[in-house]
Amino acid sequence: MRKIITFLSDFGLEDEWVGVCKGVILNIVPDAVIVDITHQIPSFNLKKAAVELLSALPFMPIGIHLAVVDPGVGTKRRPIVIETGRGDFLVGPDNGIFLPAVDKIGGINKVFWITNEEFMNVPVSQTFNGRDIFAPAAGHLARGISPDKFGPEIEKTTIETSPILPVVSSLETLKCEIIDIDKFGTIRLNCGFDDINKIALEYGRKIKLKLNGNELLIDFVKTFGDVGIGEPAALIDSSGFVCLALNQGNFSLKFNLKTGDRVDIIKN
Amino acid sequence: MRKIITFLSDFGLEDEWVGVCKGVILNIVPDAVIVDITHQIPSFNLKKAAVELLSALPFMPIGIHLAVVDPGVGTKRRPIVIETGRGDFLVGPDNGIFLPAVDKIGGINKVFWITNEEFMNVPVSQTFNGRDIFAPAAGHLARGISPDKFGPEIEKTTIETSPILPVVSSLETLKCEIIDIDKFGTIRLNCGFDDINKIALEYGRKIKLKLNGNELLIDFVKTFGDVGIGEPAALIDSSGFVCLALNQGNFSLKFNLKTGDRVDIIKN
Amino acid sequence: MRKIITFLSDFGLEDEWVGVCKGVILNIVPDAVIVDITHQIPSFNLKKAAVELLSALPFMPIGIHLAVVDPGVGTKRRPIVIETGRGDFLVGPDNGIFLPAVDKIGGINKVFWITNEEFMNVPVSQTFNGRDIFAPAAGHLARGISPDKFGPEIEKTTIETSPILPVVSSLETLKCEIIDIDKFGTIRLNCGFDDINKIALEYGRKIKLKLNGNELLIDFVKTFGDVGIGEPAALIDSSGFVCLALNQGNFSLKFNLKTGDRVDIIKN
Repeated sequence: MRKIITFLSDFGLEDEWVGVCKGVILNIVPDAVIVDITHQIPSFNLKKAAVELLSALPFMPIGIHLAVVDPGVGTKRRPIVIETGRGDFLVGPDNGIFLPAVDKIGGINKVFWITNEEFMNVPVSQTFNGRDIFAPAAGHLARGISPDKFGPEIEKTTIETSPILPVVSSLETLKCEIIDIDKFGTIRLNCGFDDINKIALEYGRKIKLKLNGNELLIDFVKTFGDVGIGEPAALIDSSGFVCLALNQGNFSLKFNLKTGDRVDIIKN
Repeated sequence: MRKIITFLSDFGLEDEWVGVCKGVILNIVPDAVIVDITHQIPSFNLKKAAVELLSALPFMPIGIHLAVVDPGVGTKRRPIVIETGRGDFLVGPDNGIFLPAVDKIGGINKVFWITNEEFMNVPVSQTFNGRDIFAPAAGHLARGISPDKFGPEIEKTTIETSPILPVVSSLETLKCEIIDIDKFGTIRLNCGFDDINKIALEYGRKIKLKLNGNELLIDFVKTFGDVGIGEPAALIDSSGFVCLALNQGNFSLKFNLKTGDRVDIIKN
Repeated sequence: MRKIITFLSDFGLEDEWVGVCKGVILNIVPDAVIVDITHQIPSFNLKKAAVELLSALPFMPIGIHLAVVDPGVGTKRRPIVIETGRGDFLVGPDNGIFLPAVDKIGGINKVFWITNEEFMNVPVSQTFNGRDIFAPAAGHLARGISPDKFGPEIEKTTIETSPILPVVSSLETLKCEIIDIDKFGTIRLNCGFDDINKIALEYGRKIKLKLNGNELLIDFVKTFGDVGIGEPAALIDSSGFVCLALNQGNFSLKFNLKTGDRVDIIKN
């Protein structure tokens, strides 16, 4: 049985950090298989990290999931391990980014605070906890160490909440936030099929968008190809989010949008 | 014997898509070894994808090669598996990008149309067939499923042709197209050693280029270092293409060139 | 026992080169495990490569380390293998980039010049020695071939020296050079804790910097979080270098700095 460790970070690929963490893991557990989710989360962007984990973890083998986006490195935020109902271990700083994903992989069973230096690289660098705390924890979990050896169990109510805010909805309007823009310029909103149901939208209908000072009438369709090339469309993406796209074009560039911007969806 | 799956796409590395496809594969065949060719094909750029596969596949172990560049995702273009004479399986949308490479790995034996939902993630997302159709197909091939289980065999004459057009040549001129610009700014043309032979060019000769309104006399040499630093050179690159470069400089920036631009090579 | 090969280059990830080298290795040694350090070294930047190797190799499993940054590809610079005191084999062009790291992994035992075509892809491309010389050498080392089979042993005094210059220090001043800027805009200097000791700096003190025409008073602290958000700090980074950063901001952008620029550290 191979020990699979998935790995997400905002380290980028320009520097040696991702490779160093992998070296640390392989020194602890030489037969680990490390699968990159992405390392190009924009620096410190917890929302994007939470979205990616939500989209990725349900498709990953049950295993160890390491995610390091850590604006508070070197401060008192806690390093933690979350054990899920499905049997995964989620390792990283306590910053809420695993929260949206855990509902899809069995919920939170237990949470442990990593305090035991026996399972760290010491002395621990105050600027690279990925190398000295989180990668070692993932490695030791992969070789079968129980997470209660790392430190005390803590109440799951005390950990950080999700960085993705819920949608504010009225009978005919969803007040949404852009939580992600992908490389094709497609916008992901913090709402999904259930929210769309609340305002009783159906495929084939037009919806009205308010974004960045513009009003826009747009088709609610099943796939990009249902509208002409260059035409805008709203659809439910492969992770269940409502997204806005131009067929073979770049929606975010055209309307000059960025993560965090507000978008209102109005039934037409 | 390890099951090697190579993987090329235009997914980029900023999002979770590449990682998700790997997770899907590892869920099906936990001991697969996945080798990235590149995921930074510019969005929907079939020419670049075809060039990279041509350069890479002859050096890859015989195995499964997954390549997803898919402007037509969600439309009626067919998902296919090509079986090569060398024993590889090439998996992706029917878009012609494998065609230049197959000649170098034994030609096309058979082609199958992937239609059987038993070997897909269902329900299939209309926007992410990589996750729901292509990665599962690669995984099932790696665990030994015969491709005729995926769907009907189809005539090889019915699949898409290569996106790379042939060179137009006269006795002393090759009318070429730029098919790729690499990170060093080196230009690859859609011609190779055989085309150069047609106009009887030899190493050490000068050739005349017409590009972007400029005429340029340039040395035809064996390696970058045969000209001074910053000097232009034409040579046969490691994949057999004619390429144009500045020694330790950036040819495409200097002459403001992009993929698809025309370049004429004239014997001087 | 798995055969681990780490891999660093300036190939970038846009093209097929990294994947091709991995294919070549896996054809020679199918059970190799290849760990990327980074492939986004700026083209031909030997200083950055040397810094990354220094930071990474001490944390990597003892094994084979392939590093290809090669402005002289196709010229007479020598392809070499360095055997370290710790038992690693360092493979690449003779360009000095391994030198800072070797001190931390046991020093240089022996150096061999790779000349034997039996262990190359022939004919060797003059523009892609990574594929035809270096990746094959790494592969053959991983399957147990002794490096003296590759070619003659050469004097270690004859190989290139490190591209990182030593600091020039007086009693109260360190004349430093920027050797690396990371994705967060943090500056690494070519000096470390020992140099700081020479001018008797202590944590908590202010230091004076001269950079790019500016004079700057800055706190010498243990971690980013010891100063306010957006505030500058000097600290010892996780690899032992002195670095300059803005807490959650971008130091290099703010002061318009680039690799190679001079920075003076003056005791205040």
